[in-house]
Amino acid sequence: MGSTGEQPDLAGTESVLTSEECWQFLREQEFGRLAFHLGEEVHITPLNYAVDGESLLFRTAPGSKLLGIVMNADVAFEIDEFSEAEVRSVIVRGSARLLEEDEAHRADSVPLRSWVGLAKYNVVELVPSEISGRRFGLNRPWFHQQPGRAEA
Amino acid sequence: MGSTGEQPDLAGTESVLTSEECWQFLREQEFGRLAFHLGEEVHITPLNYAVDGESLLFRTAPGSKLLGIVMNADVAFEIDEFSEAEVRSVIVRGSARLLEEDEAHRADSVPLRSWVGLAKYNVVELVPSEISGRRFGLNRPWFHQQPGRAEA
Repeated sequence: MGSTGEQPDLAGTESVLTSEECWQFLREQEFGRLAFHLGEEVHITPLNYAVDGESLLFRTAPGSKLLGIVMNADVAFEIDEFSEAEVRSVIVRGSARLLEEDEAHRADSVPLRSWVGLAKYNVVELVPSEISGRRFGLNRPWFHQQPGRAEA
Repeated sequence: MGSTGEQPDLAGTESVLTSEECWQFLREQEFGRLAFHLGEEVHITPLNYAVDGESLLFRTAPGSKLLGIVMNADVAFEIDEFSEAEVRSVIVRGSARLLEEDEAHRADSVPLRSWVGLAKYNVVELVPSEISGRRFGLNRPWFHQQPGRAEA
């Protein structure tokens, strides 16, 4: 990203994304983080996803994520993108369910693939109950001082 | 990021980060996502943080995040970074607590600032009980086809 040294001063600004902006951002991205219950604990995992109509689909292998969702469908999901000037974030809360075998073909018509080569046959649908998004202007004069920080 | 057209084929690879790699990654980053209980619900929020010794600190204003943590200290936290070739992700599970007034000065000696200009006076400490990290090699031939996708 080209830096002009003339960044607009967005520090302190915070604005709410419209529902349409949230969905547009969800459609543009493919990587997010799912928070779910596992018994009494809260867990979080990164995953890739795709938008299908007004729900989100992701694949998962058998494991704690699937177990947690089957035991308690209440989930939250987050995507974000940041640059030097701002962060955009969308948060989805809703209900997750394992698609039945005769519905799982829905994953074939959206760009939902497993990033790693593992076979992940279960398709989970997240039906949103609430979607919210925010855009934060940043004031990070120390941004360049951090070792290992990629220019975003 | 320069593309050579000769990406190594990492598809299908997945490796576990050592504890030291996880901490190094946590120290390099400043932005993550916190998953927490709010009553019976799971919530997720993006935030900035700093490592202080073997715990994580973040600031928060009074609100649902603080309320949720005070009601139930069980939390999960995630950071990640992705490029065309791989994703690295670290997940921390642990216990969060609001620092007492006489401890909150700890936040002053680490690079922990609020990205937006709001006064956020509460300092929360996350004491990890489990830390895990993974590196995934990616196979994303469709990566460049997505509208709005920033080159990471």
